[in-house]
Amino acid sequence: MTEAEQSPDPRQRERAGLSRRALLGGGLLGAAAVGAAAGFGTARATAAEPAVATDAAAGTFPFTGEHQAGIVTPAQDRLYIAAFDVTTDDRDDLVALLQRWTTIAARVTQGLSAGPFGPAAGPYDAPPDDTGEALDLPPAGLTVTFGFGRSLFVDADGRDRFGLADRLPDALLELPHFPADNLDPARSDGDLVVQACADDPQVAVHAIRNLSRAAFGAATIRWTQLGYGRTSSTSTAQRTPRNLFGFKDGTANLKVEETAAVDEHVWVPAGQDDPKATWMTGGSYLVARRIRMQIETWDRTSLREQEALVGRTKGEGAPLSGGTEHTEPDFTVTGRDDVPLVALNSHVRLAHPTQNDGVRMLRRGYNFTDGNDALGRLDAGLFFIAFVVDPRTHFVPMQNRLSRDDGLMEYLQHTGSGLFAVPPGVPEGSLVVGSDGTPITTGSSPFVGQALFA
Amino acid sequence: MTEAEQSPDPRQRERAGLSRRALLGGGLLGAAAVGAAAGFGTARATAAEPAVATDAAAGTFPFTGEHQAGIVTPAQDRLYIAAFDVTTDDRDDLVALLQRWTTIAARVTQGLSAGPFGPAAGPYDAPPDDTGEALDLPPAGLTVTFGFGRSLFVDADGRDRFGLADRLPDALLELPHFPADNLDPARSDGDLVVQACADDPQVAVHAIRNLSRAAFGAATIRWTQLGYGRTSSTSTAQRTPRNLFGFKDGTANLKVEETAAVDEHVWVPAGQDDPKATWMTGGSYLVARRIRMQIETWDRTSLREQEALVGRTKGEGAPLSGGTEHTEPDFTVTGRDDVPLVALNSHVRLAHPTQNDGVRMLRRGYNFTDGNDALGRLDAGLFFIAFVVDPRTHFVPMQNRLSRDDGLMEYLQHTGSGLFAVPPGVPEGSLVVGSDGTPITTGSSPFVGQALFA
Repeated sequence: MTEAEQSPDPRQRERAGLSRRALLGGGLLGAAAVGAAAGFGTARATAAEPAVATDAAAGTFPFTGEHQAGIVTPAQDRLYIAAFDVTTDDRDDLVALLQRWTTIAARVTQGLSAGPFGPAAGPYDAPPDDTGEALDLPPAGLTVTFGFGRSLFVDADGRDRFGLADRLPDALLELPHFPADNLDPARSDGDLVVQACADDPQVAVHAIRNLSRAAFGAATIRWTQLGYGRTSSTSTAQRTPRNLFGFKDGTANLKVEETAAVDEHVWVPAGQDDPKATWMTGGSYLVARRIRMQIETWDRTSLREQEALVGRTKGEGAPLSGGTEHTEPDFTVTGRDDVPLVALNSHVRLAHPTQNDGVRMLRRGYNFTDGNDALGRLDAGLFFIAFVVDPRTHFVPMQNRLSRDDGLMEYLQHTGSGLFAVPPGVPEGSLVVGSDGTPITTGSSPFVGQALFA
Repeated sequence: MTEAEQSPDPRQRERAGLSRRALLGGGLLGAAAVGAAAGFGTARATAAEPAVATDAAAGTFPFTGEHQAGIVTPAQDRLYIAAFDVTTDDRDDLVALLQRWTTIAARVTQGLSAGPFGPAAGPYDAPPDDTGEALDLPPAGLTVTFGFGRSLFVDADGRDRFGLADRLPDALLELPHFPADNLDPARSDGDLVVQACADDPQVAVHAIRNLSRAAFGAATIRWTQLGYGRTSSTSTAQRTPRNLFGFKDGTANLKVEETAAVDEHVWVPAGQDDPKATWMTGGSYLVARRIRMQIETWDRTSLREQEALVGRTKGEGAPLSGGTEHTEPDFTVTGRDDVPLVALNSHVRLAHPTQNDGVRMLRRGYNFTDGNDALGRLDAGLFFIAFVVDPRTHFVPMQNRLSRDDGLMEYLQHTGSGLFAVPPGVPEGSLVVGSDGTPITTGSSPFVGQALFA
């Protein structure tokens, strides 16, 4: 504190304050410059004001790259995802929004504030360029992943909204109605989606909030979902988490270490058949399903029945055909009366690649709990997210089968749904960087999904 | 894995499985015995199955003691709180519920499963006695705190529901309508409240879910609230967190280290005036207010206006009269035109003890984000929780004043409310412990709030 800042004269204080705020800005920019030099992979939020250490994870993941982050990134603990309706009719406005979003995402994922001044600096008579609730928090492994819904290309009447209809991938289909779907339109679809994952939920909420703010006049939030516990691992270095059925989930999930399988099942390859989708090379498709669990009914089901429906033991997560968690299930083994040990209607059997033409998904789901209904039943379950190379081969057939045959469906209801084309990453080094080393938005700024508009 | 467990013969497997499950139970019991020996202060969840280390906090807080835990306990990062309606008319059923809840809370706060078998063991044709989603998670500092609403004593028609009307404390009043209240009955009040706080949200959700399950036939959930970021510190060892206005919150909060002030402002003393409330000695009153913030409007407000309304700087959190975060605000200092630097309608001034007859509260609030409304605006804000010795002196006058005069109220709306009498703790060493060292429920089990029924 300088004398001027402590002065009872508000004019003196204000001048000192502005100067302090400018310095604070300088602190952030300095950190960003370091980040820029290191490809935005190592920057931390710093401030002239003393930061108090927290024990939350302080890591960062690069924003730029061949693919967007938040897909094969080791799944963070918490999720906040939002779908947006685009409210402008102007293609240039849409591009400008994506440019602003790209810049903000490049910053916040590196622990920087959403704008160059930060929440506590900048012109005193203007709103701060960052909302501030993450000011003292570490980056917490934040990733921000963007996607485009079918309705961005053609509206419900088939109208070409932004001159993008001839770029609508065949794979970005309207999902069919699945048996037992009970979808709420207010929790489904959307023109744009933004998935924010972090180890601190407040960091994920901060990212979406500041992106939403930057969308003012161009897009509004359609639905959001907070997920508090990851239900999938995407790396062999992670333990297998549990869903709200109390079972391990994602034991057989595709892992980032399986590079050949990831290339085959996740990333859209070059030279695909669909000429409308060349802009998607290196991208993926995000399938979102809000799956409510009938928690109270499940909790009154016997352990025998629970294990039979899942096809695995509840503690270890071993297939009922024997072994330990990572033992491959043997669907041929039978017991008493020649009944298969892994039941025909068990989830593990119906979802297994050998029963689905070898198809695998990269799942990235989260547990959610959204209050309760009027009968006191929890509105809780699993927010399913998967990234796949093509939902026509990698989601629709399996979901049809599961919805029809899976014994678990008695305890499940799909209440929300979305399918989004997730474009490739923003190329490394392509971001426009200001003289201070931080990414800025200009008329020619590169942005996520740029190839779609080329 | 034994050979029998890998056997394709389901009878052999089942026997082996039961044996393994019994062993698993033994593992839990063994850990609990250690906990019992150490006063339930140090036990950790263990299992025969290998536990994978996580980086979440692994600490535990004692469940028993003079006061309930979760009040002056250093505020954990996450909250899940639930209010219940009692559905039974039978006093004995209510007592049995509180006995079951006491036993479960004593277990889960020490990292044990809700019941002695755990989620993956016990009779195979019965539902497991624990739901399982916390099986591999550390205790994460879980505390569970119980309270009683006014409606437990007398219903809306003044009827004495359980023979408790002559024990209704004067302090457990019906809160008055405050200016600008917009309360949703479905988010307000309740016969019972359970506050679960932990550093891992899944651990807090698991606790409430298993307590809710144990309430089957006696009580149902009325409302719940998930809070993802604490907005108060209750210990000088904790940093000051930020609310969704982006400001530090709770700088002047009562801290556990201020023992004399905690005794004066939090705990109900012996020898109070109200003979109906002697059972509350050592207890406290929990005030809950769901405060929605008009996030989008706030985010368009200038930094100058934001700081003026709060009365502190946004970055450092220093009072506008000068100094640093923990400098006492000086309400007498004026600037230009003799206008006070800390405005007359600023939050820090109106809430300050010197402006409220020296009253202080122990706040324990959390940020929440519950989706969005049809216009795309976030349903987000602060779930205010405070523990006070008497809401008639320590909450109602201040809230009347804030609701009427606080400039921040333009950006706030109270959408839920509750007031609960939080009885003292279950005495150390009083829990009935089975031969295996774990707490069990018997007809004579001590329970939280027992003095109310004596």
